[in-house]
Amino acid sequence: MQLKKPARGHTIYFKNMPKITATGTVAGPKECAGIVGQYVDRALENDMFGESTFEKAECKMLRCAIDCAIENAGLARGRVDALFSGDLLNQIISASFAARDFEIPFLGVYSACSTMSESIMLAAAMVNAGYIKNAVAATGSHFASAERQYRYPLEQGTTRPPQAQWTVTGAGACVISARGGGAGIANATIGRVVDYGVTDVNNMGAAMAPACADTLVQHFRDTDTSPEDYDMILSGDLGALGSRILKDLCWEKGFDISCNHVDCGEIIYKVIEDEFQGGSGAGCSAVVFNSYVMSMLKSGLFRRVLFAATGALLSTVSSGQGESIPCISHAVQIETQTAARG
Amino acid sequence: MQLKKPARGHTIYFKNMPKITATGTVAGPKECAGIVGQYVDRALENDMFGESTFEKAECKMLRCAIDCAIENAGLARGRVDALFSGDLLNQIISASFAARDFEIPFLGVYSACSTMSESIMLAAAMVNAGYIKNAVAATGSHFASAERQYRYPLEQGTTRPPQAQWTVTGAGACVISARGGGAGIANATIGRVVDYGVTDVNNMGAAMAPACADTLVQHFRDTDTSPEDYDMILSGDLGALGSRILKDLCWEKGFDISCNHVDCGEIIYKVIEDEFQGGSGAGCSAVVFNSYVMSMLKSGLFRRVLFAATGALLSTVSSGQGESIPCISHAVQIETQTAARG
Repeated sequence: MQLKKPARGHTIYFKNMPKITATGTVAGPKECAGIVGQYVDRALENDMFGESTFEKAECKMLRCAIDCAIENAGLARGRVDALFSGDLLNQIISASFAARDFEIPFLGVYSACSTMSESIMLAAAMVNAGYIKNAVAATGSHFASAERQYRYPLEQGTTRPPQAQWTVTGAGACVISARGGGAGIANATIGRVVDYGVTDVNNMGAAMAPACADTLVQHFRDTDTSPEDYDMILSGDLGALGSRILKDLCWEKGFDISCNHVDCGEIIYKVIEDEFQGGSGAGCSAVVFNSYVMSMLKSGLFRRVLFAATGALLSTVSSGQGESIPCISHAVQIETQTAARG
Repeated sequence: MQLKKPARGHTIYFKNMPKITATGTVAGPKECAGIVGQYVDRALENDMFGESTFEKAECKMLRCAIDCAIENAGLARGRVDALFSGDLLNQIISASFAARDFEIPFLGVYSACSTMSESIMLAAAMVNAGYIKNAVAATGSHFASAERQYRYPLEQGTTRPPQAQWTVTGAGACVISARGGGAGIANATIGRVVDYGVTDVNNMGAAMAPACADTLVQHFRDTDTSPEDYDMILSGDLGALGSRILKDLCWEKGFDISCNHVDCGEIIYKVIEDEFQGGSGAGCSAVVFNSYVMSMLKSGLFRRVLFAATGALLSTVSSGQGESIPCISHAVQIETQTAARG
């Protein structure tokens, strides 16, 4: 595999390979019944997390994940130079209120459920350039706060259509440092906003798949790699239907990702009730990536992962005004030292 | 003036001094009646801007400002490597929908009315490090879309209290490039979230002033500069009352900014009606900085400006749940080549 940088790619390269030295994850009971259950740092018994509102519970999960990541990295809070975070709530209040408690310089980001990879990208860019030494990238979501903000009050008991996904209750954070052990961030591909005209707000997977395909194809072309070069190509939260669309779109462009593609939304739940297509929400990829996937990288079972979280950039106002759903996907390439040498 | 970097400052330094090569600004009729009127690129006759909704008008203003900045820089759209943008609407839809039309790699940011300086900081950091060559930083706001999202429907005719500010209808963008003429970005101070417990959502100036003071004082200490080293210390949108609080807070910490401090919100309007404390909104500092202030830097009347836009990170939900208003302010130091040499 040879890395060459084309004239006008969308990929930025991190020569100094900033390391993900530690992670922290929190997830709700429904989430912990699935694959991530054995990997998360804190499994909640109750998704209220001792708080009086869903929004406060969401914020507390995010704080908890950030705290846990900093502790796992063995860092004092004062040595974290910047926190990159955002979430799905209006005005990213979970991230802002969490940042209030940490007193760490804070850079708010928003790209819906692509926030985890955007945060990692920006944090890695700042650390690699030597501006800062230690950064934290974090995001999360909560099923109940998302439902009542984006869809219907839970009390209404609205029936969910079969193409719907289930917003993950969980949060994930990672510490990105100039020094230390752990998997490194080799490069990142900045996504473009892609809109195929999907207007069904219950069909996020179909809306987001084209944006994810755009970024993956751009990444393969920029870095002169192909799907086989990765142990895992991890998309954000396309769910079962969206994942199938993604594979088709990539295949049309000449890239067959079917062998090593995994979608966070597709694997997070034991789909037994009404999650239908699987998980979604910023917390979905945040939990899967920072628990299960990072654990695989740490153990050496994976050597190179392409992580492309996906976000739907709609609001209730934009949908109400007849707009379709613009989407985005940012990708980061994570690899162990063995892979980097190979 | 000697620049020295303390062990754990919050300031990042741009050795290669990325340049602001061009700007683009759009403002509504009320805004253009004031000081910025003669400097903006496009003065609107009507704040609907030919659109059917306020939100669509806001998005169109942002698109127009970005387009104008790229054109003024003499760049082809395809040569812009990244767009950093955000706005006040839920899920930053103005920025996301504007980005959809440009097909430029997009990084969504959110720090309320501090979005202009956060965007400039991140764009400058990426350009300075050599990741990208040309970036656009942009934001905007609209009085009517902000009123109905954050406060009351306009049709209700609610009386405004005397401590209130008026959300600016306008947008501003700038092109930040590795090469080219124009004022350079020397460094940036990343803000922390500061909350003094203000709960009055009509008194944003008082809520934001402590965050601005925190960042300014941190900046002076990190860079070993004092207020006299700047031709202008430009805060975001504190308004008249907030500006007085800012000066007091800085003075308490040993920095007298009273001689060269100017607040975008305080100067943007001819306060004659019910704007009371002046302007606010992400568009306020975006328009003032990218039109009037950049023009002063271009003409050589200013040589060094410290621009600290300020943001209140509340949402209607956080206020409704009894939370106070956490605030943030990011600062960027802009200077002409003469100042840099001096």
